[in-house]
Amino acid sequence: MIRSLFDTDSPHPEPSALTAFALNDLARDSEHRAEDCVETALSVDGAHILAFSGNRLILKHDGQVLDPLFALYELSDLQPDLDNAILLGHRQTGEPRLAVPVGIDEENLASHYKPTDGRSLFRDGLVDDALLGEFAQGASLITWNRDNRFCGRCGGAMEMRIGGYKRVCAACDHTIFPRTDPVVIMLAIDVEGDRCLLGRGAHFAPGMYSSLAGFVEPGETIENAVRRETLEESAIRIGRVRYHASQPWPMPHSLMIGCYGEAKSLVVKRDEAELEDCRWFSRDEAAQMLERIPGTGDHTPPLGAIAHRLIRDWVEWKR
Amino acid sequence: MIRSLFDTDSPHPEPSALTAFALNDLARDSEHRAEDCVETALSVDGAHILAFSGNRLILKHDGQVLDPLFALYELSDLQPDLDNAILLGHRQTGEPRLAVPVGIDEENLASHYKPTDGRSLFRDGLVDDALLGEFAQGASLITWNRDNRFCGRCGGAMEMRIGGYKRVCAACDHTIFPRTDPVVIMLAIDVEGDRCLLGRGAHFAPGMYSSLAGFVEPGETIENAVRRETLEESAIRIGRVRYHASQPWPMPHSLMIGCYGEAKSLVVKRDEAELEDCRWFSRDEAAQMLERIPGTGDHTPPLGAIAHRLIRDWVEWKR
Repeated sequence: MIRSLFDTDSPHPEPSALTAFALNDLARDSEHRAEDCVETALSVDGAHILAFSGNRLILKHDGQVLDPLFALYELSDLQPDLDNAILLGHRQTGEPRLAVPVGIDEENLASHYKPTDGRSLFRDGLVDDALLGEFAQGASLITWNRDNRFCGRCGGAMEMRIGGYKRVCAACDHTIFPRTDPVVIMLAIDVEGDRCLLGRGAHFAPGMYSSLAGFVEPGETIENAVRRETLEESAIRIGRVRYHASQPWPMPHSLMIGCYGEAKSLVVKRDEAELEDCRWFSRDEAAQMLERIPGTGDHTPPLGAIAHRLIRDWVEWKR
Repeated sequence: MIRSLFDTDSPHPEPSALTAFALNDLARDSEHRAEDCVETALSVDGAHILAFSGNRLILKHDGQVLDPLFALYELSDLQPDLDNAILLGHRQTGEPRLAVPVGIDEENLASHYKPTDGRSLFRDGLVDDALLGEFAQGASLITWNRDNRFCGRCGGAMEMRIGGYKRVCAACDHTIFPRTDPVVIMLAIDVEGDRCLLGRGAHFAPGMYSSLAGFVEPGETIENAVRRETLEESAIRIGRVRYHASQPWPMPHSLMIGCYGEAKSLVVKRDEAELEDCRWFSRDEAAQMLERIPGTGDHTPPLGAIAHRLIRDWVEWKR
């Protein structure tokens, strides 16, 4: 008898909160912004800026400390594109936080600037959790604004509004909002055999195995997407599906929806165009792979990745 | 002691499967299509077409039966836009199923054609569940292709590829894939008081109350989106979040992610710009609202809507 529908047998009450990019302390208030919110924010003393080279965050380093926060004047030698500055939100102190794309080529950057991609940021622990969340928000919004400079309906120029949370066509008024792509990422479980299904793409780091994943298609539930993607990539049929956790994945702007899938068949036939290998791993093998350092044998994605969470929580699930 | 992590205390093993638009029997095979897949499909004897006027499905009626399936020759007086025909997929019989936008204005349509929106299709039970799913897929893809005729990066003309599942810019090669917008829709529960939180927008049918909802933002987990949206719309603070069901919502191309939220505060202060009313309802009140016919008092959204599912499953949850 469960006391409340909010009680869970999962090893963690909210596994999403344990994934990288999940934390964000900013008051974003994206629906109630003035049109001049960016100008206002930039004029505030103490406003800080995340600077982006493409999707990469620029870290300043002085030999000892990596610092991702720029004051406006510090951007001057990076060719900041202030017309495309994005207001992320405000800290509890009232301090505004913005994201600004820079124009300078990476080869012309002074050596104390380090452009760093999202995977390295969380894998190497280069910034704290709150800043990881701000990076995710900023990277997603910068990419989406950059990819929508022109109107898809009429080809006219689109204008950024309310600090990057809306774009409006100057010619036809077509209005669009930031895009977030739902992706299912799922760990298929052979319940009887106590095994999980992992695969590796040819582009993965040597020895890394992860759970299968794919975009949710138009007109599809999460559960049907889990079954379709698993079938397509591995030929394994999935019955019941259990949602476990979600994660913002800002490469460029996905929402990872992590699930467990109950395998109803066992013979793996991988999609050779997608996967270099795909097979079942015992709970003991998976437990070892979670702890192993890359380069020392088969391993899982690092802590912070939702695939790691799915694998670890299955390994640690109370039976 | 739960036998398997796939066992659930929910009233249904997969509530998503009980929502409208969820079923889709087509082999869509959207990743492995030939460039001429639409032409090939249209040339197959027995190919059937869903005809769209904007986002509305055109139903033929002969006074007795409503039929949404057109043969190619039957489209001739509807100005079919075959350059923008979309391949939905194939039935198990091998029969191709397509979606085609028509050019004729609705006021010029002969009276035996009924353009019908998605809400009416499921609420009034006008087509069977499999066709509802095909409608959802087709409506989402038609809207997305229509809204992306030009390249957001360079303003060049985009070309449809692989039957509507990809668009490529002829000028700069920028490639885009169908958009699906994740939306959280959540029923806040006052566990101690055994009540649920419902609101109504000014545009709702008279007497209808539903669960709160809003788009997931860039860089946000599902759980954080549930808490943020509930706080913004009602001032209610949410603690634990439990995923319950998902639903494709093709108006125009959303993925509804249905959750329960555990209320940590009780004083409602509604967002007056969004909601005309928002308050707590007891389990008995909610049970009555589920059964009530519109026009006879306060009621919930109809069976098939994910909000109905969230409310009904909470009412029927075993305690």
